[in-house]
Amino acid sequence: MAATLQTIEALNALQPSGFVEQLAEVFEHAPWVAEAAAASRPYPTVTALHDAMMAVVRAAPPDRLHAFIAGHPELGSRVQRTELTDHSQAEQGSLGLDRLSPAEFERFSRSNAAYRKKFGFPFIICVRRHTRDSILAQFERRLANDVDRERAAALTEIGLITRLRLVAKVDGPGKPVTTGRLSTHVLDLAAGRPAAGVAITLHEIGASARGLLRETSTNADGRTDGPLISGEPLRIGTYELSFHVGDYFGASSALFGVVPIRFAIAEPEGHYHVPLLVTPWGYTTYRGS
Amino acid sequence: MAATLQTIEALNALQPSGFVEQLAEVFEHAPWVAEAAAASRPYPTVTALHDAMMAVVRAAPPDRLHAFIAGHPELGSRVQRTELTDHSQAEQGSLGLDRLSPAEFERFSRSNAAYRKKFGFPFIICVRRHTRDSILAQFERRLANDVDRERAAALTEIGLITRLRLVAKVDGPGKPVTTGRLSTHVLDLAAGRPAAGVAITLHEIGASARGLLRETSTNADGRTDGPLISGEPLRIGTYELSFHVGDYFGASSALFGVVPIRFAIAEPEGHYHVPLLVTPWGYTTYRGS
Amino acid sequence: MAATLQTIEALNALQPSGFVEQLAEVFEHAPWVAEAAAASRPYPTVTALHDAMMAVVRAAPPDRLHAFIAGHPELGSRVQRTELTDHSQAEQGSLGLDRLSPAEFERFSRSNAAYRKKFGFPFIICVRRHTRDSILAQFERRLANDVDRERAAALTEIGLITRLRLVAKVDGPGKPVTTGRLSTHVLDLAAGRPAAGVAITLHEIGASARGLLRETSTNADGRTDGPLISGEPLRIGTYELSFHVGDYFGASSALFGVVPIRFAIAEPEGHYHVPLLVTPWGYTTYRGS
Amino acid sequence: MAATLQTIEALNALQPSGFVEQLAEVFEHAPWVAEAAAASRPYPTVTALHDAMMAVVRAAPPDRLHAFIAGHPELGSRVQRTELTDHSQAEQGSLGLDRLSPAEFERFSRSNAAYRKKFGFPFIICVRRHTRDSILAQFERRLANDVDRERAAALTEIGLITRLRLVAKVDGPGKPVTTGRLSTHVLDLAAGRPAAGVAITLHEIGASARGLLRETSTNADGRTDGPLISGEPLRIGTYELSFHVGDYFGASSALFGVVPIRFAIAEPEGHYHVPLLVTPWGYTTYRGS
Repeated sequence: MAATLQTIEALNALQPSGFVEQLAEVFEHAPWVAEAAAASRPYPTVTALHDAMMAVVRAAPPDRLHAFIAGHPELGSRVQRTELTDHSQAEQGSLGLDRLSPAEFERFSRSNAAYRKKFGFPFIICVRRHTRDSILAQFERRLANDVDRERAAALTEIGLITRLRLVAKVDGPGKPVTTGRLSTHVLDLAAGRPAAGVAITLHEIGASARGLLRETSTNADGRTDGPLISGEPLRIGTYELSFHVGDYFGASSALFGVVPIRFAIAEPEGHYHVPLLVTPWGYTTYRGS
Repeated sequence: MAATLQTIEALNALQPSGFVEQLAEVFEHAPWVAEAAAASRPYPTVTALHDAMMAVVRAAPPDRLHAFIAGHPELGSRVQRTELTDHSQAEQGSLGLDRLSPAEFERFSRSNAAYRKKFGFPFIICVRRHTRDSILAQFERRLANDVDRERAAALTEIGLITRLRLVAKVDGPGKPVTTGRLSTHVLDLAAGRPAAGVAITLHEIGASARGLLRETSTNADGRTDGPLISGEPLRIGTYELSFHVGDYFGASSALFGVVPIRFAIAEPEGHYHVPLLVTPWGYTTYRGS
Repeated sequence: MAATLQTIEALNALQPSGFVEQLAEVFEHAPWVAEAAAASRPYPTVTALHDAMMAVVRAAPPDRLHAFIAGHPELGSRVQRTELTDHSQAEQGSLGLDRLSPAEFERFSRSNAAYRKKFGFPFIICVRRHTRDSILAQFERRLANDVDRERAAALTEIGLITRLRLVAKVDGPGKPVTTGRLSTHVLDLAAGRPAAGVAITLHEIGASARGLLRETSTNADGRTDGPLISGEPLRIGTYELSFHVGDYFGASSALFGVVPIRFAIAEPEGHYHVPLLVTPWGYTTYRGS
Repeated sequence: MAATLQTIEALNALQPSGFVEQLAEVFEHAPWVAEAAAASRPYPTVTALHDAMMAVVRAAPPDRLHAFIAGHPELGSRVQRTELTDHSQAEQGSLGLDRLSPAEFERFSRSNAAYRKKFGFPFIICVRRHTRDSILAQFERRLANDVDRERAAALTEIGLITRLRLVAKVDGPGKPVTTGRLSTHVLDLAAGRPAAGVAITLHEIGASARGLLRETSTNADGRTDGPLISGEPLRIGTYELSFHVGDYFGASSALFGVVPIRFAIAEPEGHYHVPLLVTPWGYTTYRGS
């Protein structure tokens, strides 16, 4: 990917055809977006370039706009019904649409058919900003929209999808923030120092399963080496950090073995810092900064 | 049960045969315990009566003592292999030996055979003070004992079992403490008042399943109407309180939906007070008093 | 006082003259209040009796009402200018109007003269519900009232004053709540138990001085033997609890010697529970319940 | 000062006489220390240079060592008896030996006379690492030493004094840590964000007075612009941070006006991070990292 990372200055200087070629994949099956945007160069920032391309989309005649939206792929291609029973635990990896329980598969299929019938175009969502549960929830919420509002919702999602594609291709000043960060910090308030060597797991908590995202442990500063998640959008959903404080405190504690902290992420581009202040007999957590 | 509750004074005044009849079921198949204890009356307290009966047991000749211990029923009669897969959730009721996963059933059967072979008497444990997981753990721990130490362990458990039976039959001064208490309290530190109407569930957390023990909610004082558990021994094991604070805070919170507090109970006759001090963005819990 | 405590039933049954005699001191220099209230007997509760007496006051003709209010004693009789310099610490006892710094004495005298001139009656306040600082603050705030509003404020205070006098004389059902309570509780979250033997002082914090109200220490339950204040109204003002946790933790802590918790009391009839959850390296406090 | 800051490389390359000239003021009235150290050049680090100079001192013949120690100035030159009464508040600046109350002046004078008499040399202490109270406490503690132990204590202090002088003159790799840091952070756990605009004061808390060290407030990140103290040793002593949370929360809080956090600093070269997690009705503080 680094090999194809262009600077905004280089894009500004290209022939129109070269500019279009570089950005053809950003808006799928729609070279006219890049073509129109080429004419308004130069762009001072990556954000300005993306704004201009979205303005082209929004200004397109109704037929072209409808065809553009309708040309997006079905979400359904990735959907799979799993053999997991309800409430079972998928202990490895993020929960995606390839891991639906029978009940969820049923729910997804119903939404999909109803959506197609009502709107005449496929359900579009920036999957990288969502967990399976939030996709299913969004699907049902957006089904209640009227066509105008839903077309606007689809364009918003296309904006989020193409923004991620663009920052993967173009470097330069004014890059939009497209990534979030999840971090933690464990302080031992009985000893008055960072708690080192505390094993930590991070799970995604789905309605029907848990997906293990990370296994790590704290370093001498009570932090993990690097954030728990970074460099990508945080997926909207529910998560659980499990701190193995029983092993850390050893015989001095009989009350807590594993401390689970369950929290929701609502801002994919936000910074969630979730510290634990802990003694053998009590603890405090909060959204830090 | 109330109909048969005798006072210690009444027992002190009975004919020896009447005394023995009243207490026959306390030590199974061993009327000689009550017979010997009858001779040392009067007893000032229920505890003194129980101590005297246990002293009779401990002073019995080796053959009689062995026969007494060996005469206890097998724990195995209640054991059942369930169809639950590993990690599945048994959402109703406490987890007992009637709810073993295949792996646990296997583990139990192995321990049972090895125990019988090594000690020549059945594994005795005061089941009412234990969860399934702590029974299995005790079983394996005690298998490592030598015969003398294990006979002592069995007598300790018989003391705990008969103490519970005795306090169910006899009233009066000096009753031993045989029950524990689990309670909670929710304070809303954003509003500065008890958090009323917070839904709470209490689960037993087994290695292979969760058992739902209570569903309740907080009253105007931020407490539950009555303790979560009381009037019986607390079963040694791991528990999880889930506080539905998301519904309580409503739109003002996006961080916490359900706050799980997982903790171990190690003292069946103890008082565990586990409060929650909570805001929409942080919380504190600890072992209170 | 117990010797003169009448029941509401006894008061209901007295001759009118006896009733008036018993309650004469409640409303100063105003036997007509008790005389009118005698006619409406019986009163089911102490609160009903007090409400009836206040209704008599409020229904009095303007001249009588003015004379009644104006007949109250000057607050000034207790006021003294002390030799304490600004910011010095009066280490013994509550801070009253007998302990004004020169600047406060000046401020009080100015308010007093202005109040007399503006309203033509003395400043009336239920002194037992206030500290020196809140009296001075109320004085200045009420000076800004117009005459009607200030007459209402004076009657509210007379209601509070006479309510306290009445509950000291009359017993029975429906006694109004006239007392507050201040309590604390210290939990050692490093050891998982109540912190016993922690020395505690309670000061009133005035703008120009501190007054020592209590010196005590925690018992085995981490509480004080009895509330810090009870059986009387809490005085509106600022307070500081000092917990000598350095002595409690000994060598294991080098961070905290004395933990000061400063808080305001705004509800004289409220219950203020101010616990401390403490380790050698951190602590939490909050308004409990 | 920057003008005279030499690099260790430059010192290594100087003529012996130039080296001695540069470092003459580090060890007072003792050019022989620098002379001997010049011969062992080059020094790879600033720490190695300081260690070598202290080794020269420690290896000096007894007479020379005694003369060197005895040649240090009396601490007494800065001592002043102030007119402040006991418990009064010196609201501006750090509390030094120029601000002793009459009782403290008396105590200092007694210690000084006894010290001279017992040891025959002046009391030496690295004043920049101490508050007035810790100097007085050290004085009395060290008076109890025997001569050998006290000579060692004096040399330790000379090491600390000269280390500070050396790092002010010499730059380069391996500089010893001679400075500490005090910082804070305020999080509003009711709103789930850093608390901006909270006024903060930092006082030194002496036995007989308070000295105001800093007045500042939190920025948008809930931190102060720069640490509260940095770039110098933290003085061993007791401090109080006052957080004006009443003004911050406004009408939503009636419980806390000013939150005082009192803590001891014991490690002059340490990092003390003292955060406040606060709601209108409760708060948590701890030694962070």
